[in-house]
Amino acid sequence: MLLTNLTAATMKDGYGLIEDAAILIEGGRIAWVGPRSEAPSGHDATDCEGRLATPGLIDCHTHLVYGGSRAHEFEQRLTGTSYAEIARAGGGIAATVRMTRAESEADLAASALRRLDSLLAEGVTTIEVKSGYGLDRDTEIKMLKVARELSQWRPVDVVTTYLGAHALPPEFRENRAGYLDLVCNEVMPAVAEAKLADAVDAFCEGIAFSVDETRRVFETAKALGLPVKLHAEQLSNLGGSAMAASFGALSVDHIEYLDQPGVDAIARSGTVAVLLPGAFYYLREKQAPPVDALRKAGVPLAVATDLNPGTSPVHSILTAMNMACVLFGLTPEEALRGVTDNAAKALGLYDRGLLTPGMRADIALWNTARPGDLAYPLGFNPLAAVIHHGELVRGIL
Amino acid sequence: MLLTNLTAATMKDGYGLIEDAAILIEGGRIAWVGPRSEAPSGHDATDCEGRLATPGLIDCHTHLVYGGSRAHEFEQRLTGTSYAEIARAGGGIAATVRMTRAESEADLAASALRRLDSLLAEGVTTIEVKSGYGLDRDTEIKMLKVARELSQWRPVDVVTTYLGAHALPPEFRENRAGYLDLVCNEVMPAVAEAKLADAVDAFCEGIAFSVDETRRVFETAKALGLPVKLHAEQLSNLGGSAMAASFGALSVDHIEYLDQPGVDAIARSGTVAVLLPGAFYYLREKQAPPVDALRKAGVPLAVATDLNPGTSPVHSILTAMNMACVLFGLTPEEALRGVTDNAAKALGLYDRGLLTPGMRADIALWNTARPGDLAYPLGFNPLAAVIHHGELVRGIL
Ligand SMILES: [Zn+2]
Ligand SMILES: [Zn+2]
Repeated sequence: MLLTNLTAATMKDGYGLIEDAAILIEGGRIAWVGPRSEAPSGHDATDCEGRLATPGLIDCHTHLVYGGSRAHEFEQRLTGTSYAEIARAGGGIAATVRMTRAESEADLAASALRRLDSLLAEGVTTIEVKSGYGLDRDTEIKMLKVARELSQWRPVDVVTTYLGAHALPPEFRENRAGYLDLVCNEVMPAVAEAKLADAVDAFCEGIAFSVDETRRVFETAKALGLPVKLHAEQLSNLGGSAMAASFGALSVDHIEYLDQPGVDAIARSGTVAVLLPGAFYYLREKQAPPVDALRKAGVPLAVATDLNPGTSPVHSILTAMNMACVLFGLTPEEALRGVTDNAAKALGLYDRGLLTPGMRADIALWNTARPGDLAYPLGFNPLAAVIHHGELVRGIL
Repeated sequence: MLLTNLTAATMKDGYGLIEDAAILIEGGRIAWVGPRSEAPSGHDATDCEGRLATPGLIDCHTHLVYGGSRAHEFEQRLTGTSYAEIARAGGGIAATVRMTRAESEADLAASALRRLDSLLAEGVTTIEVKSGYGLDRDTEIKMLKVARELSQWRPVDVVTTYLGAHALPPEFRENRAGYLDLVCNEVMPAVAEAKLADAVDAFCEGIAFSVDETRRVFETAKALGLPVKLHAEQLSNLGGSAMAASFGALSVDHIEYLDQPGVDAIARSGTVAVLLPGAFYYLREKQAPPVDALRKAGVPLAVATDLNPGTSPVHSILTAMNMACVLFGLTPEEALRGVTDNAAKALGLYDRGLLTPGMRADIALWNTARPGDLAYPLGFNPLAAVIHHGELVRGIL
């Protein structure tokens, strides 16, 4: 397939714009990209009518698979019920754990597909999905299986992450070490054995797990050959990011409270900083991530929805890009790189996120002239078509 | 048409929920609503499969019709260009005025319809559209004509507003009184004569028009029999709202800086407070409207997108509802009333916004159980179907 009459935002050096471009796709990969006038001959051309082509978008941090709904807690909070009261009544993450344990794989898949469809409608071609609402062996495995199976139902690549150290389950409330034993000695080895997870994640925070507890989880992951990533420095600065960097973490995520030594540590380890403005927005946080320090240190910045049932029910990657610009001051170019090239790196994937020869042919085509326009509006979707693995899977060309 | 097997959020007293309800539609109006078991007999039932029914949503403040795009200014600002520099280079509202004057009616309609389609996809059945990017006789009339004609192309009711006093056009930069002469002596009478506007609006602010200038505009509107509304107290407290109240204004809009005397004045006049969280979000404002004082005074609260090319490119009424909750602390019920009952009042319409007998049969059906869920997610659209004037215009029942 030779796509012609398009503007290509290759994302190689800045936007890497090529006007009046052509893209040759062969065997599911990009074989050639450049000015139309120099395109290889002998291929039937598909006219893209001047549209913008970007790499297929990558949502590198989601909790897409979960049971039930916590929308009513939003209403409770806004009508005067405190977080503590909601938690005492069994709400919050404990409620999602209960509902996720209770749901069948089929029900979990059905609701996850509805949410996934919102992401796909905006040009997403790769997503990451975490476990972490089971917190027992069977439910964590159930979640990861459902996540893996999503790609059988929709044209999307799914990268899975085992997030056993997300919260302490109720049955271990008085036995933190016992839960970490379960995670490290039983569940993670089983997940690794079944090849159900591509990485291991944890939530390092005062309300979740300490740096030492998280280190134990990471040591187990390392022994099992699984790369790590971390929810870190979201509400306070515990130093989780620097510890994660010492394990060569793929990414540290949230990092509103990351300090300069933390920035330096992740810069040295080549760890990606994943910014999650949706949670910042819903929680009405005041401290934004140290974007300037991250830029100066050359840390790659990614952006994701953090789609989850409680703190970031954001089902739109374009909204996450917009919030990264408006709330965190990213440029539209940084926001687009954050959901393409740098989102791929955050997942340890080096075969996508750029429109360059050899990369997978995952391409989004947009009814807009400039790549900087994508992050600007809210609730306006200019997507025209999607190519996934070299196949047209959405829209008409 | 008898709709059955639905939950009706009638919005009469709170949500006015009726579980397992039925709605009888006759002659484009709601003839009966109540429990299914008490429904009038002799009508073929349409099964709504347990869905939620709300009044069709009403976006009571938009600038939907405009020429060109200012998305690139967003990128300029985020890459370090100041507002002042952008303005000196002919950007900002002046750019939209230039581009709107240059575009044909057909081009203005085409881009407005693309934006309108985003609103309609979320259950909007009535919108308000303002002029104000022409600032000369012919372009203001062109904008209002395009706005009126939108309802010929889509199943929506359009309420139009003449906003001549939006900004001072460049050709009157040294002659403020001359521009007000044009507005009051020429354009507004022509607009009224052609019945192109249902109301008159103005922008009362340090960077726009003073209270005295706005009063002159309102006196002319009153003489022509047109109701008034006002962009007021957005960036500072000038007292425009109290002045507008003295004219019995339909609404005062933005009102972040409204003080207690202003609240009291609009409470006495029965004026609706229209909250526009999109502009608050994009401008990164810090002062929220005095929601508690407005509640205590019994002022009806409406919520709208303020869809415009510069300060609120928000194309989603559900996003406006969400932001009203998250950024301004409205309850989901207030947000839903703000885009139904109170939005209708803000437009001087008393035949819609509730699901009660005699009201127009404008109904949105949603794939969700609770009305409080609508404001919760971002980028997730649970709309199932829309009935406009008693006709099914979207979805399948
Ligand atoms: Zn997360
Ligand atoms: Zn406005």
